[in-house]
Amino acid sequence: MVKVAVVGASGYTGVELVRILVHHPQAELACLTSRQHAGKKFSEVFPSTAGLVDLTCEPVDVDAINASADVIFTALPHKTAMEVVPAFLAAGKKVVDLSADYRLRDADVYQQWYQEHTSPELLADAAYGLPELYRDKIGAASLVANPGCYPTSAALALLPLIENRLIETTSIVVDSKSGTSGAGRAAKEGSLFCEVNESFKAYGVASHRHTPEIEQTLSAVNAGTVTVSFTPHLLPVDRGILSTCYAGLTSELTTGEILKIYAERYANHPFVRVRPEGTVPDIAHVRGSNYCDIGVVADARTGRVVVVSVIDNLVKGAAGQAVQNMNLMLGLDETTALGLVPLFP
Amino acid sequence: MVKVAVVGASGYTGVELVRILVHHPQAELACLTSRQHAGKKFSEVFPSTAGLVDLTCEPVDVDAINASADVIFTALPHKTAMEVVPAFLAAGKKVVDLSADYRLRDADVYQQWYQEHTSPELLADAAYGLPELYRDKIGAASLVANPGCYPTSAALALLPLIENRLIETTSIVVDSKSGTSGAGRAAKEGSLFCEVNESFKAYGVASHRHTPEIEQTLSAVNAGTVTVSFTPHLLPVDRGILSTCYAGLTSELTTGEILKIYAERYANHPFVRVRPEGTVPDIAHVRGSNYCDIGVVADARTGRVVVVSVIDNLVKGAAGQAVQNMNLMLGLDETTALGLVPLFP
Amino acid sequence: MVKVAVVGASGYTGVELVRILVHHPQAELACLTSRQHAGKKFSEVFPSTAGLVDLTCEPVDVDAINASADVIFTALPHKTAMEVVPAFLAAGKKVVDLSADYRLRDADVYQQWYQEHTSPELLADAAYGLPELYRDKIGAASLVANPGCYPTSAALALLPLIENRLIETTSIVVDSKSGTSGAGRAAKEGSLFCEVNESFKAYGVASHRHTPEIEQTLSAVNAGTVTVSFTPHLLPVDRGILSTCYAGLTSELTTGEILKIYAERYANHPFVRVRPEGTVPDIAHVRGSNYCDIGVVADARTGRVVVVSVIDNLVKGAAGQAVQNMNLMLGLDETTALGLVPLFP
Amino acid sequence: MVKVAVVGASGYTGVELVRILVHHPQAELACLTSRQHAGKKFSEVFPSTAGLVDLTCEPVDVDAINASADVIFTALPHKTAMEVVPAFLAAGKKVVDLSADYRLRDADVYQQWYQEHTSPELLADAAYGLPELYRDKIGAASLVANPGCYPTSAALALLPLIENRLIETTSIVVDSKSGTSGAGRAAKEGSLFCEVNESFKAYGVASHRHTPEIEQTLSAVNAGTVTVSFTPHLLPVDRGILSTCYAGLTSELTTGEILKIYAERYANHPFVRVRPEGTVPDIAHVRGSNYCDIGVVADARTGRVVVVSVIDNLVKGAAGQAVQNMNLMLGLDETTALGLVPLFP
Repeated sequence: MVKVAVVGASGYTGVELVRILVHHPQAELACLTSRQHAGKKFSEVFPSTAGLVDLTCEPVDVDAINASADVIFTALPHKTAMEVVPAFLAAGKKVVDLSADYRLRDADVYQQWYQEHTSPELLADAAYGLPELYRDKIGAASLVANPGCYPTSAALALLPLIENRLIETTSIVVDSKSGTSGAGRAAKEGSLFCEVNESFKAYGVASHRHTPEIEQTLSAVNAGTVTVSFTPHLLPVDRGILSTCYAGLTSELTTGEILKIYAERYANHPFVRVRPEGTVPDIAHVRGSNYCDIGVVADARTGRVVVVSVIDNLVKGAAGQAVQNMNLMLGLDETTALGLVPLFP
Repeated sequence: MVKVAVVGASGYTGVELVRILVHHPQAELACLTSRQHAGKKFSEVFPSTAGLVDLTCEPVDVDAINASADVIFTALPHKTAMEVVPAFLAAGKKVVDLSADYRLRDADVYQQWYQEHTSPELLADAAYGLPELYRDKIGAASLVANPGCYPTSAALALLPLIENRLIETTSIVVDSKSGTSGAGRAAKEGSLFCEVNESFKAYGVASHRHTPEIEQTLSAVNAGTVTVSFTPHLLPVDRGILSTCYAGLTSELTTGEILKIYAERYANHPFVRVRPEGTVPDIAHVRGSNYCDIGVVADARTGRVVVVSVIDNLVKGAAGQAVQNMNLMLGLDETTALGLVPLFP
Repeated sequence: MVKVAVVGASGYTGVELVRILVHHPQAELACLTSRQHAGKKFSEVFPSTAGLVDLTCEPVDVDAINASADVIFTALPHKTAMEVVPAFLAAGKKVVDLSADYRLRDADVYQQWYQEHTSPELLADAAYGLPELYRDKIGAASLVANPGCYPTSAALALLPLIENRLIETTSIVVDSKSGTSGAGRAAKEGSLFCEVNESFKAYGVASHRHTPEIEQTLSAVNAGTVTVSFTPHLLPVDRGILSTCYAGLTSELTTGEILKIYAERYANHPFVRVRPEGTVPDIAHVRGSNYCDIGVVADARTGRVVVVSVIDNLVKGAAGQAVQNMNLMLGLDETTALGLVPLFP
Repeated sequence: MVKVAVVGASGYTGVELVRILVHHPQAELACLTSRQHAGKKFSEVFPSTAGLVDLTCEPVDVDAINASADVIFTALPHKTAMEVVPAFLAAGKKVVDLSADYRLRDADVYQQWYQEHTSPELLADAAYGLPELYRDKIGAASLVANPGCYPTSAALALLPLIENRLIETTSIVVDSKSGTSGAGRAAKEGSLFCEVNESFKAYGVASHRHTPEIEQTLSAVNAGTVTVSFTPHLLPVDRGILSTCYAGLTSELTTGEILKIYAERYANHPFVRVRPEGTVPDIAHVRGSNYCDIGVVADARTGRVVVVSVIDNLVKGAAGQAVQNMNLMLGLDETTALGLVPLFP
């Protein structure tokens, strides 16, 4: 049994990691940290785990964490993560970092969208944790930068088109809608029930920090730089991201032809399900699961293709993908602890 | 007092017409029809109106309706509307039709997206009921085709850009999200609570019937034909449409410059509120009201402008705009019975 | 025109007062205060009011408020209200206080459930602002203590039974469920969307501060002291309270007989609507309105009566009832600015 | 591997059975029936199961079902179930019936609340499938009548009090609130999103068919007949039942003393979690799981005890309890396939 720590366990991503890891046959939860709740039983903070998790929240003590675990998940805000990750790596641990701190390969780009990077020397060896693109690199890495939720949904939707040069790479629009758990568990007016319920709005228009991450992934598989218009919106649901992606086709293709390309591209990737022609995915179809469902429609009228992808932002968009990455890092079956049927309704 | 009939009063649009008209100082509700509930008190069908509406639902009897009212709102499904509208007009009534039957000026286009038109001779004189574009024509019309909910949100978002030739008219993407009341009150599996709640999906991708209506409105103010990629989505809220519109700018413009154009365009249109720079609208800001709030962001990185508009689909997207049109047809102040503060939260 | 101030205008009750008062034909909004947002335009804090309210949020300055207004609504937390109310009264103002500070007639009871009272001398003359019970006293008062939301729903449900000695007064159970706007706009973890959505829970079981207020109102119309078991619950909706009240009948009565008593009791009270036999009310039937809808079922099997009442907690449970009280204090028609049809759906 | 059939698989209970059984290590899904969707792939009806379930919906053919399976779950409407259950038993199958048809031991009571019973001879041997009360009988049964969702929540809340003679058995009030999946997947106006969302109402007041089932279970462990006032309400959530139960205590007991009794009563029942003193359960704590969480408050003021229980109506209230019963019938560990952490948020 591999001993596992979750650093920052009292956020929504943290409890989701716990939910998945409790049932992992090769991993044992050894340490959960929470600055806010240190000293409390985890099951007091999250009564859903009563009788199933018997750990107490610890403060963030790097040495204690290193002493307790072999694999460390850091579910901390950006900047806070890079304060501790180097010490875990120095102790020989495997780290899956769920923050943004090691996702961008270029420290200057990181500084432009976030702030100065304090451990840029780690960026070169960090694997970007999208197994559908970098499975082998992840398997060999000590540090995996777990992708952002929006970038995961956008990348899986668009990779087959870009890899095959099927779209104009200056024409891409990614219109994304996310459930509110993506905003975290911090008490903010904008996340209050009465502000979100019966509400819907865009935010970070033309300025969201996930934009360079999406562009980095898509550019990596293209001859040149890919630029996208990305607009996130806040959905009045707990979980789920749906991205509606638009791009101009470089040649006339039918929906069926494009779907065939998607089916082949993802044939060996068990968590991507391509929807049959004539159907589109719903976030409700992947709730609580690590699946990404994708639907495609080619529109001959406008010469565009519309790709719709859905994920659970807390699973494939965060904790589930993190466990998928841990599985690869440990040489386990990629799907271990992740094969459950989505919860519907 | 003008006597008013609502034909098809037991749908969500019908009860919303009643809600607004009850408080109209120059109109009197004279007749409400409902095939399904004929013979029942309207307040039994909609207990919200108990003590406020004392009418009984009537069957759809054209002669009886003509005998009872001067202005007739037809809130019927398409095709069903054109079975009765000609008879109302023949009797000299003013009609605001909330179906799609008289919105498209070209009977062939109607046939292509809907079915054969049975009164194409009325199309030439029907006014398209978007007061922000056709106020004078509406004022002179006997038949007003009340716009669709999505087309209203898209047209108000895009008109200033197209009228001023600021965008590439082949580059337009309209990504719209609607509350579930837009699907009507018919008992369908897809509209059940457990199918919509905690769910989000696209539908009618590249094939929704509101597409030609949006294109007709935008093309009318452009030198040539405008084509749009339009994708509607179903939101788990009762009311509200948000449209996120993308288009390539033909010249470099700042957000402030574009907002100034919007402010001038809508200066004399009391129901359009242009949001200050740096803010975007939320459907929760217009709930229960006839307002359309619009926010704009110019994105120099991609050369695109992003325009976000919100309306209440049952008010500015249906019943409220219909009353606004009636006010214009009767020479009343456009805002009569429509000036209420939105309900928040 | 009477000049009106809303002290504490940036909470949900505050914006609801503004929503109603904007349309009041005899009142003019003269002053809005908000400690948190002082200096900001009110319409910046609540974009729903853009174009309709052109006031700036002021700090809480008693002299400035006294100089600007004749009637003052205090929508402040308990304790904070009693810090300013005496000064408004001393200046000869009429005050409707929406906090709990002047609701309990006995300063000792207040101290037991809240804290020490700093102006107990005002309690004797404060009218309890439930017009269906104290209309005349309210009309003559300078200070009206606006009832709590739960106590309003419970009192209107139970008054006819207690006034007519129809139930055992030791047998009463009040099981109430409230929308989340009742928890206010403060940023608290427990009010976050993801904590409330798809959730339902009881709170304050056997210890909620509204218990003595309910008992005071019911005891006042009974020969002896009435004790109730009161349990509030948090509903994942924005607005609405439903109270399900149980009590043992002192004699055999049919549902019809009891409904007749309710109909007579509330015949002259325009905001109470008694539902026809065989139907029960829904919070959706009163959304955005000042109505209280009541349904009754007598259960011969158990010898109990079940009374279900619904209100909008922000309207009849707060702002609407406050305006109703102001109308009475000013000698206006009780329903002024309050007669709108509820918003459904 | 035991072969399993789900008869009536296209309702919400059916898909939940499938969700759980897919991961059952000793059971294999062999047959799924659906009158409405016969001939369609199950994963087409429920896309959440794509890639995980590869069965086609079959018509309800008793012989074919008997030929394919050893254990049969009937998730059919009442009356429809008793049309097929006898034939399954006659073929030697083990049956877990999720309808109401075999829950009431007295055919006359069944007839009074439902209709005439067509196989009353089976009632004597049918086990009532509440493992926390009838574990041994279930283990020996061929036919298990899976309890109703409300009765499960009420029985688990009240059994310890009644078994220990701690409450007046004429004083019981059960005020229950259920998520909308309990209303099934049939297309009914009352189950539409816009009718349920932002709504809350009681239904079946003093007349709901689960009343005699609750009373039967409680009376069975009491010296005499127990009568309850039971009121169900419809919650705008997908899943979850919360029951707030009130009863007069026969002696003075503290919350701590009562909690101790609960802890002992359920010590050997892994799916009942008793909440620590000072906390109450939330339906969100058991979402997607087979747990029943219970909180208790003794109220010295009124002499009553308030017990709050929560379950997921589709799991412990239906499909999960059905699998728990199958496990017992097959001599397996009661918790097989049921031990997952609830999904939060």
